[in-house]
Amino acid sequence: MQLGIVGLGKMGGNMRDRLRAGGHTVVGYDQNQEISDSTSLADMVDQLGGEQRIVWLMVPVQAIDAVLKDLTPLLKAGDIVIDGGNTRWSEDGPRAAALAASGIHFLDCGVSGGVWGKDLGYALMVGGPAEVVETCLPIFQTLKPDGEHGYVHAGDHGAGHFAKMVHNGIEYAVMQAYAEGWELLEAADTVTDHVPAIFESWQDGTVIRSWLLELLVRALKADDDLSEIRGYAEDSGEGRWTVEAAIDMAVPVPAISSALFARFTSRQEDSPAMKMIAAMRNQFGGHAVMPETED
Amino acid sequence: MQLGIVGLGKMGGNMRDRLRAGGHTVVGYDQNQEISDSTSLADMVDQLGGEQRIVWLMVPVQAIDAVLKDLTPLLKAGDIVIDGGNTRWSEDGPRAAALAASGIHFLDCGVSGGVWGKDLGYALMVGGPAEVVETCLPIFQTLKPDGEHGYVHAGDHGAGHFAKMVHNGIEYAVMQAYAEGWELLEAADTVTDHVPAIFESWQDGTVIRSWLLELLVRALKADDDLSEIRGYAEDSGEGRWTVEAAIDMAVPVPAISSALFARFTSRQEDSPAMKMIAAMRNQFGGHAVMPETED
Amino acid sequence: MQLGIVGLGKMGGNMRDRLRAGGHTVVGYDQNQEISDSTSLADMVDQLGGEQRIVWLMVPVQAIDAVLKDLTPLLKAGDIVIDGGNTRWSEDGPRAAALAASGIHFLDCGVSGGVWGKDLGYALMVGGPAEVVETCLPIFQTLKPDGEHGYVHAGDHGAGHFAKMVHNGIEYAVMQAYAEGWELLEAADTVTDHVPAIFESWQDGTVIRSWLLELLVRALKADDDLSEIRGYAEDSGEGRWTVEAAIDMAVPVPAISSALFARFTSRQEDSPAMKMIAAMRNQFGGHAVMPETED
Amino acid sequence: MQLGIVGLGKMGGNMRDRLRAGGHTVVGYDQNQEISDSTSLADMVDQLGGEQRIVWLMVPVQAIDAVLKDLTPLLKAGDIVIDGGNTRWSEDGPRAAALAASGIHFLDCGVSGGVWGKDLGYALMVGGPAEVVETCLPIFQTLKPDGEHGYVHAGDHGAGHFAKMVHNGIEYAVMQAYAEGWELLEAADTVTDHVPAIFESWQDGTVIRSWLLELLVRALKADDDLSEIRGYAEDSGEGRWTVEAAIDMAVPVPAISSALFARFTSRQEDSPAMKMIAAMRNQFGGHAVMPETED
Repeated sequence: MQLGIVGLGKMGGNMRDRLRAGGHTVVGYDQNQEISDSTSLADMVDQLGGEQRIVWLMVPVQAIDAVLKDLTPLLKAGDIVIDGGNTRWSEDGPRAAALAASGIHFLDCGVSGGVWGKDLGYALMVGGPAEVVETCLPIFQTLKPDGEHGYVHAGDHGAGHFAKMVHNGIEYAVMQAYAEGWELLEAADTVTDHVPAIFESWQDGTVIRSWLLELLVRALKADDDLSEIRGYAEDSGEGRWTVEAAIDMAVPVPAISSALFARFTSRQEDSPAMKMIAAMRNQFGGHAVMPETED
Repeated sequence: MQLGIVGLGKMGGNMRDRLRAGGHTVVGYDQNQEISDSTSLADMVDQLGGEQRIVWLMVPVQAIDAVLKDLTPLLKAGDIVIDGGNTRWSEDGPRAAALAASGIHFLDCGVSGGVWGKDLGYALMVGGPAEVVETCLPIFQTLKPDGEHGYVHAGDHGAGHFAKMVHNGIEYAVMQAYAEGWELLEAADTVTDHVPAIFESWQDGTVIRSWLLELLVRALKADDDLSEIRGYAEDSGEGRWTVEAAIDMAVPVPAISSALFARFTSRQEDSPAMKMIAAMRNQFGGHAVMPETED
Repeated sequence: MQLGIVGLGKMGGNMRDRLRAGGHTVVGYDQNQEISDSTSLADMVDQLGGEQRIVWLMVPVQAIDAVLKDLTPLLKAGDIVIDGGNTRWSEDGPRAAALAASGIHFLDCGVSGGVWGKDLGYALMVGGPAEVVETCLPIFQTLKPDGEHGYVHAGDHGAGHFAKMVHNGIEYAVMQAYAEGWELLEAADTVTDHVPAIFESWQDGTVIRSWLLELLVRALKADDDLSEIRGYAEDSGEGRWTVEAAIDMAVPVPAISSALFARFTSRQEDSPAMKMIAAMRNQFGGHAVMPETED
Repeated sequence: MQLGIVGLGKMGGNMRDRLRAGGHTVVGYDQNQEISDSTSLADMVDQLGGEQRIVWLMVPVQAIDAVLKDLTPLLKAGDIVIDGGNTRWSEDGPRAAALAASGIHFLDCGVSGGVWGKDLGYALMVGGPAEVVETCLPIFQTLKPDGEHGYVHAGDHGAGHFAKMVHNGIEYAVMQAYAEGWELLEAADTVTDHVPAIFESWQDGTVIRSWLLELLVRALKADDDLSEIRGYAEDSGEGRWTVEAAIDMAVPVPAISSALFARFTSRQEDSPAMKMIAAMRNQFGGHAVMPETED
């Protein structure tokens, strides 16, 4: 098929490569002209010609509305816009409605796979009307991994990003599970020096074998006690949204939230809450506090 | 090699089969004579002959001391006892010392793989002196999975069961992660009816692909909304020991403990703590309480 | 002073009583004419006369916008509206701005005290401009408790409801703390039959003495093992908002969120997440599941 | 009454003062002769004379067995030993049995009150046989606070320390609740600069008024943003034991454990678990890690 891609960063650029390798015609647009196939959004749309056009957005979340403002007038009724970014699912419905006012179709597509996706394929979770999804299926078929799975039509508008959000929420807690286990093994005299070997062995035959475990083993091969890495973890939004969605639906998510909070804590120089704990202990028990300057 | 196995239940029996298929000579003993290869522990030891004997224990944790009391006098210096059960790691050191008084060697071996182990192999985590481990290596090689991994010498006495314990602690939290994600998807109108398909798709290309995810998909294929299963989860000890070990070493394990507590709660008819919450709300706010008889 | 109160339910009605006992002139309005002092909002405003009018809203959160739509045209520039309900703090700023367009002042006031407030006074947390707060001070002075504390100007628009929200978030976790402790004591053979006496004794001299502890003791005096109360706890919104605000500001709140999740769980007939845990255990270990019909 | 006190540190010394002020005759013994009333345990026992002797131990947990080894031969059948230290409850039963072999009675007494106890009285939770408790009642009556409450006979051997342990477990979570709330308020622009005033106001009329809240307010009066205190919190054992007891009895304690884990985390220079999270994120997403040396 033929499609445009707006945003040719790490993800968008790799997807362009994978799509072209799969035989599709891709016209990319990026503000960085060195990697762009077109000089402007208008030029990209022109190059796509007069037939039904498909435009895949792979831009930062904050940029989507600006892109759509410029792109919408360039498109015609029947064209399709796919948002493949890390958008909050609740924004998809309103955007679909806004585009529908111009007769333009909209799909939301959650994408997993990170830097491995170009070679191994991207897991895709798509939301939107079945007939529009059907039209774009050849694109999804090329992007997805070679295996039997890795693609799903998850429901109507927002369902793709919702499924991806929950995927990431699960991911947070699974990572936290391995991280806690690693910290515990590292702390135990009993298994000293055998920790990397233990994790490596777990890759076959155990209940907890997984792709994340394989990545963990790779990380330990590069730095066997992670002494070169600081215990500082960002979060990219989906974890927060997962907990918020859970709260909204009264679903208890203690493991996912504990993973999120552990990341928050990791980014604090000094925990305000623990200052207060120390202050209260000092008040009732005369327990010494550590002065801030000792840090 | 030649070895005895004490305890021929689901695990021990399957391991006997796998070992025999691998060319080893196994003399099993079980209280249930219908499945036993020997009439008594003494008979089993007799059949093993006068050379260095290896006896693998695959009995319930509570039965180990009783078996060792009967078995020890039947063995001679240089013989090897391997505990392959779900023993608490802290018991291994004292048992090794007690057997060492008779010149008998001891290994602890954590085993993962469940009902799948017979065919796919068992992941093994072994604790004990290197030379004793070396002697038993042919047995471990047969029991382990075919892949490159699945076996590790994790350290000295107790290290095998310690590694297995942490494996299970991680397992608790990983399962909790998927379970929370599933509950959230089930609760969301956005993805209604697509939940099993979403999980199925995640098996390729996602960050959270794993063996447990595959098992989860199998479970949903058998019962797509789990309407036939009650939300009641046992725990087998290792999760508790993991949290206790973490507390002992001042290692924070919020995800693992939340998984453990969720299982505790699942087994309560009615939460005592929540009775108290309801009672306090009633006291300060006049909020209605639900009478217990409504249950 | 003179003021109108819209909403004369449990809270609004008691506040009217306390204000009148404190010498204020109160014109109440409620849809229920039997308890109303006025036949309509317009009648209420008429009765307040032509001077600067103060109207205190004590209506359900969902009703506020409807009330304001009717009330605003009846007021004149310089009048003051105080929202004393359990409003989400983020709604205060926009409402203040909307009223400001008509020259009407707005204050938000978080109120704590429950059914005890009429006699003991209500703790008040007020948000809004200092000069408007100053004007209404006599009202706050009458409503607040007799002690030295119990009233605070917490900041500009939204600060009153924000402070009240955090108060309730803390309350959730404090209640959870006592509830966990009570469950633990109830479960321990060591202190059998002494549990109510233990809590009663804690009211003096301990680090954990508090008003909630006193309420807990009252609850145990009425039902010494809470056998008549079901472990079912509602949540009223502030706990959810607290966790959401924390997530928004990357503040870890593990205790508050665990209290919230415990309430969510208490309202589930059967935990979906635990169904999935049971299903996965069955898949890998052959562990029996409990059929849903056993419930 | 007449009694001996072994250990005259901060707690033991203050208790001696309070008991003497209450009319009791106290013979204290401490290794530090400058504060001791006796030159040795034997001298202390001698000074107590030949009647039924009562000896109160107020020594560090690790020292108790050594003291008892020396003290037991000096006592006679019918004498009473009271352990007022922060002993783990499970050690009380065996110690009571050991002393019973010499006909010596034993009581365990959990003590709360910290540095405030000398003036305000100590909350006491006593375990042991009723008749022995009865004999010592005048001592407890003097030590306890003046109010109606503050003393309880909590059950047989171990019950006093068990109740105190749960008290401290609750205390951990209550402190965590306030600490999370404080951190949240500190983080919010809405209430900037009003945080100490908000907490001060909460001391009257709110649902969360408590003694700990009053201590918190004192702490903020001394250092209004706690800028001089480091977020570093010790734990003294009872919190750990509470979670372990809960695990042993399958009681979910998410709030108490989260408070414990937050303290563990506060003492880590860098979180090992978060190193692993960062390492895995880098592996799958190419997310940058922060080098340890930036610390």
